[in-house]
Amino acid sequence: MPVQRDHASEIAAITSHPTFKAAVEVLDADHDRTVADIITLTEIPSPPFKEDRRAAAYLEMLRAHGLEDVEQDEIGNVMGVRRGTGNGGLIVVAAHLDTVFPEGTDVTVRREGTRLHAPGIGDDTRSLAVLLAFIRALDAAGIRTRNDILFVGDVGEEGLGDLRGVRHLFSKGRYRDQIEAFITVDSPQVDKIVVGGVGSKRYSVRFKGPGGHSFKAFGIVNPIYAMAQAIVELGRIEVPETPRTTFCASIVGGGTSVNAIPEEAWIDIDLRSEAAEQLARLDARCREIVAAAVEQENAIRSTSEGGITVDIRTLGDRPAGNTAMDTDIVQFATAALQAHGFAPTHEASSTDANIPMSLGIPAIKIGSGGTGGRAHSLAEWIDVEKAASVSGMTASLTTILAVAGFVGE
Amino acid sequence: MPVQRDHASEIAAITSHPTFKAAVEVLDADHDRTVADIITLTEIPSPPFKEDRRAAAYLEMLRAHGLEDVEQDEIGNVMGVRRGTGNGGLIVVAAHLDTVFPEGTDVTVRREGTRLHAPGIGDDTRSLAVLLAFIRALDAAGIRTRNDILFVGDVGEEGLGDLRGVRHLFSKGRYRDQIEAFITVDSPQVDKIVVGGVGSKRYSVRFKGPGGHSFKAFGIVNPIYAMAQAIVELGRIEVPETPRTTFCASIVGGGTSVNAIPEEAWIDIDLRSEAAEQLARLDARCREIVAAAVEQENAIRSTSEGGITVDIRTLGDRPAGNTAMDTDIVQFATAALQAHGFAPTHEASSTDANIPMSLGIPAIKIGSGGTGGRAHSLAEWIDVEKAASVSGMTASLTTILAVAGFVGE
Repeated sequence: MPVQRDHASEIAAITSHPTFKAAVEVLDADHDRTVADIITLTEIPSPPFKEDRRAAAYLEMLRAHGLEDVEQDEIGNVMGVRRGTGNGGLIVVAAHLDTVFPEGTDVTVRREGTRLHAPGIGDDTRSLAVLLAFIRALDAAGIRTRNDILFVGDVGEEGLGDLRGVRHLFSKGRYRDQIEAFITVDSPQVDKIVVGGVGSKRYSVRFKGPGGHSFKAFGIVNPIYAMAQAIVELGRIEVPETPRTTFCASIVGGGTSVNAIPEEAWIDIDLRSEAAEQLARLDARCREIVAAAVEQENAIRSTSEGGITVDIRTLGDRPAGNTAMDTDIVQFATAALQAHGFAPTHEASSTDANIPMSLGIPAIKIGSGGTGGRAHSLAEWIDVEKAASVSGMTASLTTILAVAGFVGE
Repeated sequence: MPVQRDHASEIAAITSHPTFKAAVEVLDADHDRTVADIITLTEIPSPPFKEDRRAAAYLEMLRAHGLEDVEQDEIGNVMGVRRGTGNGGLIVVAAHLDTVFPEGTDVTVRREGTRLHAPGIGDDTRSLAVLLAFIRALDAAGIRTRNDILFVGDVGEEGLGDLRGVRHLFSKGRYRDQIEAFITVDSPQVDKIVVGGVGSKRYSVRFKGPGGHSFKAFGIVNPIYAMAQAIVELGRIEVPETPRTTFCASIVGGGTSVNAIPEEAWIDIDLRSEAAEQLARLDARCREIVAAAVEQENAIRSTSEGGITVDIRTLGDRPAGNTAMDTDIVQFATAALQAHGFAPTHEASSTDANIPMSLGIPAIKIGSGGTGGRAHSLAEWIDVEKAASVSGMTASLTTILAVAGFVGE
């Protein structure tokens, strides 16, 4: 029987330790530098699949912060190791380099008092700067951990990036077999700990047919009817409320002229579930529906000019997973937040933590501190008021230290 | 009981008359000039709703050809009168100024032997030049008609132009109460006489809803489901084969992000029939279907954030109509083609003639002569080989003279 750990006591041992207090003082004293780093990194555009410029800058920052084995991997992640005392394994602390904003988006930071406005500034650029602040604070206070900590700026967290950076880290990266726990610092809010990874399958279903003149060719198959039939059936699927499972017909397109039977129509579909088996079931049902809709259209209208065919292209495939409430990583994060006056809640979401969760590796998402809003919109903002910012950072640093094995000396 | 006219004999009386033969010789001798006019007019772009430049040029050409009362009306049509002998009414001979090609399309004519390639060259620019050739031939041969002939270059025949030029001519134009017959010369082919006007109703049906996050807001109404339900029901409508009646879901769109329930989805629908009452029935059924689909979506999913609303915007409304086979205009055209060695067939289509047909005014579409193909594509071409061109032009001129009342001296 495993020893029951008293997580609150372990957290208290950290927060009361003089070296930890010294580290917090550094976070506080160093705050302007952290804000400057946030602005610097935010103003380096990092569109989906084009994170190179920001990755290069962050690589240099990691190197300047004295990490070891600083490198960029094949997929584009940049990382470096802060060595532990040698008797532990390796944990990952990551923030994502990419934003949702396309090339050409104005990423100039506009400051109003303690509010900073810019696309991507909270999600997740602030976290990149906060990881650097953590390294400086740990170094200045002389704090050691048992585990090595791999600090990572990863690519492809958003949208069609499909978690490709962290997926690579766990499937092909050189550390893939050594990672004992994974913490992603994503967006400012700290009191919501993400412990569930909502899985998703996204695909674009493209129906093709012969096309023809709307009047002269009337009676032949029309890919829009096949698609509509599939969408109607999709809308009728029954899904459980718990584990939460959803479907969505999201984007639809097709056709070129009002007087033509179109040659193509397509629908982008988003399927999600907190549970892997529910997601698999939903995915299978959706594919059945598409096949049946094509078959029906080819049966009820003429295929004399050719029938309807269909092609399903995967847009995204994020595995579902979760980290149990009674695991150390969740208990430490919860106790750390409570110790710093927060009232933590536990949620499921889709983050870089999905990948390790799906592999059974303890993983959570925590916050970068302070407040923010309007993520994924051009009006995105964060507040860098010092007290709130440092308080949130302190809670997150406490969690990281507990998971990495704080060495009290 | 009306006197039964012998149309073939009347046609023979025209084609055997010395002045008619003289006119045909002019068509032949003048062919290079006609080809030059085709090129000149084709190279003046005339996109939908932007026929002004070509209209201005054609107005000057009509004036230079000695017509009376040359003018441009409020909607953009240009026209002029060739006076009859005064004991007849007025007939219209029209060709359309507009093409389907957008602004910026390269309309340079490329010549390969007797083939001319350019967007819009056959549909319907060639006909504009042919009307001028007819005027020159009639004048050179000294041919008179009983009726006044109003030569018209009209706007808005294609697509969303929705026949607005000819619609204006018959609803608000100064000649609206005097027109006894209408002949549109549209595209090269002469052996298919259009005697039926396929009516159409086209609309864009736009479904709107509150939109939301695909996972977090799951369960709320989605405009794509309402639209799909309407499309499926549209596809189930039963329509008669005769009079030919058709429907088409043509263009579909909506949504912006794969992880969002969209705020909008729309479908462009094309409804057609050779019979006005069938078209009206189809239109009514389609509107019922849309309303029911919206109602269903609002009933089966949550409207807590707002319900689905729908807006139907008319894209086109072309009245159905036809000119009976036993009318003089159809009989003259048929006999004229036969007299020149063609084997005419009779068809229904959607042309400028729909408007007078729907008003009970005798109307047909005839051809400009020669051959052509790939209309409405960038690869559009015509062949201006002289013998075939003049033969087709001669048949069409014969029809016009018979309808206008050829005066044999």
